[in-house]
Amino acid sequence: MTETGLTVRRLARSGTLRGPTSGLAPGYVQANLVCVPRELAYDFLLFCQRNPRPCPLLEVTEVGSPEPVGVAAGSDLRTDVPGYGVWHHGERVAAPETLHDHWRDDLVSFLLGCSFTFETALIRAGLPVRHVEEGRNVPMYRTNRPCRPAGVFHGPMVVSMRPMSPDQAVRASVICARYPRAHGSPIHLGDPAALGIRDLDRPDYGDAVTIRPGEIPVFWACGVTPQAVAQATRPALMLTHKPGHMFLTDLLDSDLEGLG
Amino acid sequence: MTETGLTVRRLARSGTLRGPTSGLAPGYVQANLVCVPRELAYDFLLFCQRNPRPCPLLEVTEVGSPEPVGVAAGSDLRTDVPGYGVWHHGERVAAPETLHDHWRDDLVSFLLGCSFTFETALIRAGLPVRHVEEGRNVPMYRTNRPCRPAGVFHGPMVVSMRPMSPDQAVRASVICARYPRAHGSPIHLGDPAALGIRDLDRPDYGDAVTIRPGEIPVFWACGVTPQAVAQATRPALMLTHKPGHMFLTDLLDSDLEGLG
Repeated sequence: MTETGLTVRRLARSGTLRGPTSGLAPGYVQANLVCVPRELAYDFLLFCQRNPRPCPLLEVTEVGSPEPVGVAAGSDLRTDVPGYGVWHHGERVAAPETLHDHWRDDLVSFLLGCSFTFETALIRAGLPVRHVEEGRNVPMYRTNRPCRPAGVFHGPMVVSMRPMSPDQAVRASVICARYPRAHGSPIHLGDPAALGIRDLDRPDYGDAVTIRPGEIPVFWACGVTPQAVAQATRPALMLTHKPGHMFLTDLLDSDLEGLG
Repeated sequence: MTETGLTVRRLARSGTLRGPTSGLAPGYVQANLVCVPRELAYDFLLFCQRNPRPCPLLEVTEVGSPEPVGVAAGSDLRTDVPGYGVWHHGERVAAPETLHDHWRDDLVSFLLGCSFTFETALIRAGLPVRHVEEGRNVPMYRTNRPCRPAGVFHGPMVVSMRPMSPDQAVRASVICARYPRAHGSPIHLGDPAALGIRDLDRPDYGDAVTIRPGEIPVFWACGVTPQAVAQATRPALMLTHKPGHMFLTDLLDSDLEGLG
């Protein structure tokens, strides 16, 4: 069976899939999930507009609808993601398998582009994606770079990291620039301290990966940023995906190419 | 004196400049203006997110503030544009020289990218931009292509048109793809009837231009789209720029390159 966005969503809905989605359904666009009440939706939409590198918008649902009609008609955001987070006043109070017990009719859902899109392009170009090689979740770190605030929302940018040789990092930068809606090119490479990251072996989300001799860490803006923003902002309610456990859309990576 | 975004804004503020801005301050990003009351701001922001080709967002102001701090600190959207439109219930009721008599403390202002950004790149590549050559405003047309609705907002996409030979159109498509926040590559070329345009000599906005033998019309999504949306949607109040009379930012065209 050819794996598609739809087949992965079905595996999540049936409970068969509860792990990270990196490497699944190659060529299909994966997405970060954020749901907030309507009264916070303008501020969050503006936050995404002002921070397009970590929060590139793919879709915003109608109020109360769990179906992102523009990118995955017939899907259900409450069941089709393999893992969720429930945030109350900045604390993650639950990590449920579905959102049925947490859904409200005033929720607006946001789907943000994900680095797994450009990873497919990197792998096709023969570039290393270490966490895929090692069967782990991608390492993610909170940084000292503040996002541009919008309304009640503020907080630090989160980055994902992939180790590469310097020449591979240059090639990856060119390739990723084709996908501005999947975080685009790296925001930093080399010294982690420049981003306020103390220890690459202790990521704030996901798993550490091996950095080989001659490699440097390469950092991309990450769609887990809204979860760090929830911790900083303490909104009464935010629902999210579990880091690395993404929503699969029906969009093809090529649909995003060059698209702003 | 070198012309910059700032010097053009000053010419508008002083009343010296009241004409179209195409070709002014080459290399500085120009922007379409839309102001709506806060109660409509979420719907309009969502409309832009769902229609990034005609409405690529560069900046959204704080409620009531006429200063787009992210792209032109110290500027004033009420005075720094060479011409305005005031829309009440879908009718353009005034075309004032400033917005002072129409400003309200509940207005949110949106700046959208403009094709004048890619025109600079086209001219540098030796490609024709006929309306600049002929000293006219760019021709713009309402189409039969509906925008994706958001809340109260719906309506047809507006396009701008530049005549070129087919091989020039191909080169222009590649160049414009570098600027997704300035409408990106064309949405159509050739037969105007495919967009529901009956007569290229009678644009809905701006001026007609000469189409030479061997040339075809090439069409780009246009930031005047919100004005057609105002006519279709009839919101109580929308303030805009006058078509072709843009707000000059401090951003450089290169700042937008590849940026989604």
